[in-house]
Amino acid sequence: MKIAIYGYGNVGKAVERMARYFPDLETVAIFSHRKVEAESAVPVLPCAQTEDAKGKIDVMINCGGSAVNLPITTPMLAANFNVIDSFDTHGKIAEHIEKTDKAARGGDNIAMVSAGWDPGLFSIARLAFSSFITDGDTYTLWGRGVSQGHSDAIRNIDGVEDARQYTVPSQEAMRRILGGEKIEDAHVLHVRECYVVPYPGADTEKIEKSIRTMPDYFVGYNTEIHFIDKDTMKKEHSTFPHAGRVIRKGKAGYNTFSAELCLSMSSNPCFTASVMLAYARAVHRMYLNGERGCKTVFDIPMSLLAEDMESIYKYL
Amino acid sequence: MKIAIYGYGNVGKAVERMARYFPDLETVAIFSHRKVEAESAVPVLPCAQTEDAKGKIDVMINCGGSAVNLPITTPMLAANFNVIDSFDTHGKIAEHIEKTDKAARGGDNIAMVSAGWDPGLFSIARLAFSSFITDGDTYTLWGRGVSQGHSDAIRNIDGVEDARQYTVPSQEAMRRILGGEKIEDAHVLHVRECYVVPYPGADTEKIEKSIRTMPDYFVGYNTEIHFIDKDTMKKEHSTFPHAGRVIRKGKAGYNTFSAELCLSMSSNPCFTASVMLAYARAVHRMYLNGERGCKTVFDIPMSLLAEDMESIYKYL
Repeated sequence: MKIAIYGYGNVGKAVERMARYFPDLETVAIFSHRKVEAESAVPVLPCAQTEDAKGKIDVMINCGGSAVNLPITTPMLAANFNVIDSFDTHGKIAEHIEKTDKAARGGDNIAMVSAGWDPGLFSIARLAFSSFITDGDTYTLWGRGVSQGHSDAIRNIDGVEDARQYTVPSQEAMRRILGGEKIEDAHVLHVRECYVVPYPGADTEKIEKSIRTMPDYFVGYNTEIHFIDKDTMKKEHSTFPHAGRVIRKGKAGYNTFSAELCLSMSSNPCFTASVMLAYARAVHRMYLNGERGCKTVFDIPMSLLAEDMESIYKYL
Repeated sequence: MKIAIYGYGNVGKAVERMARYFPDLETVAIFSHRKVEAESAVPVLPCAQTEDAKGKIDVMINCGGSAVNLPITTPMLAANFNVIDSFDTHGKIAEHIEKTDKAARGGDNIAMVSAGWDPGLFSIARLAFSSFITDGDTYTLWGRGVSQGHSDAIRNIDGVEDARQYTVPSQEAMRRILGGEKIEDAHVLHVRECYVVPYPGADTEKIEKSIRTMPDYFVGYNTEIHFIDKDTMKKEHSTFPHAGRVIRKGKAGYNTFSAELCLSMSSNPCFTASVMLAYARAVHRMYLNGERGCKTVFDIPMSLLAEDMESIYKYL
């Protein structure tokens, strides 16, 4: 099975790196807007040449960003290729599915969107847990890991040279949830841990106030702010580990039930890439099986993720 | 959607009790070999009358035992009904699938086998985790909860009036696994905690020796044996809580990944029943969609488990 990578940022590089652990997949091309060299021997081609690959690859792995790129490129690619992305703007997935479905059907292709860990594996957990624990509460906790959106928001403050925001699940909230308590205020689920490099002479008190008063991002949260220098940032904050869990606690009459999916990873992009590659197998198999249009994790039987579908009974 | 319950033991009673939490399901009959009264207003009919229900129910929930009943009754029922069971003899599932598939196709029906938590939800976790954490080790730990098979094995010893065996995950083994260690000897994963009621005057030393030297069941395990009286057994050991987890730890180059599914339940039969009822929805929907033959959890997209398929995007 032949794949190509579209977009050579963090996720694109991670897909290239992780693909070697999927012996049934061969990466035949990387498409990039920039002139770059690949880590491996895979040829890097300009995005303008993408259409030349039509008929030569089984699944295009779209590795662009959710904010700007994917809403445009996934439907565009779906017109010519089977495609998979990890679109993660939760509120806009329905719209993204609709556009992608139309394009994929128009091109007689299959597309899969939001194939990562959240949305993705966590979505499966939220749906499945709710289906058999009928009355209960579901909590998603992220971290400890860098939130790109929150880091960017701090970087946009006057006087800030660089910043990382780690989302950290509150141990206190975890204890309350596992103890069966219902938590109404979602703000208490996470602590926001900020590492900020100020420009020389910048007013750190003012920066701190700007962070704490930023609506949606920090207001209402337990926020910790640490000012550090550039060297410390580089030395201690240049990897992207992440983690998270979906917990559902519920009851049915006298019964209490609980279900939990926990993930942790030394690199968020590499883990996301691995999930996309496993689902790329499913996309290819469903295409061969005659299926077309846009799919999500909810539409895909787990058997299609296995490297060897003949030996899956061993997992029963 | 109309269901019926076949077999009115622990699981059958649990399905009757849990079905009220699935507002889209209606239980129309209970079939039992024994003359019993149902807890609810559902009519209890003799098994001999099962065929009369043909065409009147959408899915038959087969609640017999795996050792003796299900290998016979699931294929038998599949000839006349869509059927679902929770067959859990891991080593014989392939054979059970083959027989059930033939019968279901012969009757133009759909059947689903091994729809519980293990096999079932844990099977999904083992397959899925392996698909994206390509190089690693998967561990399944059960407990703390009663193992019916181990309890029965103790009850068969001379001088034993009653017994419960709790399988308990070893905290030490859990620490080693979560710390990234590979465990080769599966015996160290669990502690076997036995509560035994001896007959008056029975030789407890002999009983203890018989337990500790029982191959497969206890040899090689850290086994704790407590002799108790009948009253204590009744007071402290008459509920069936259970729990378990599937853990996969792995790496890919410099990366380390971990994934874990944890379940815990105050009643093993009631949780199993809830999982079967959610999958009964899927069986019915796949039947309406034209699918036939025998399915497992690996064949079924998660969307089909939701009460309301129109609103599943909220879980993304």
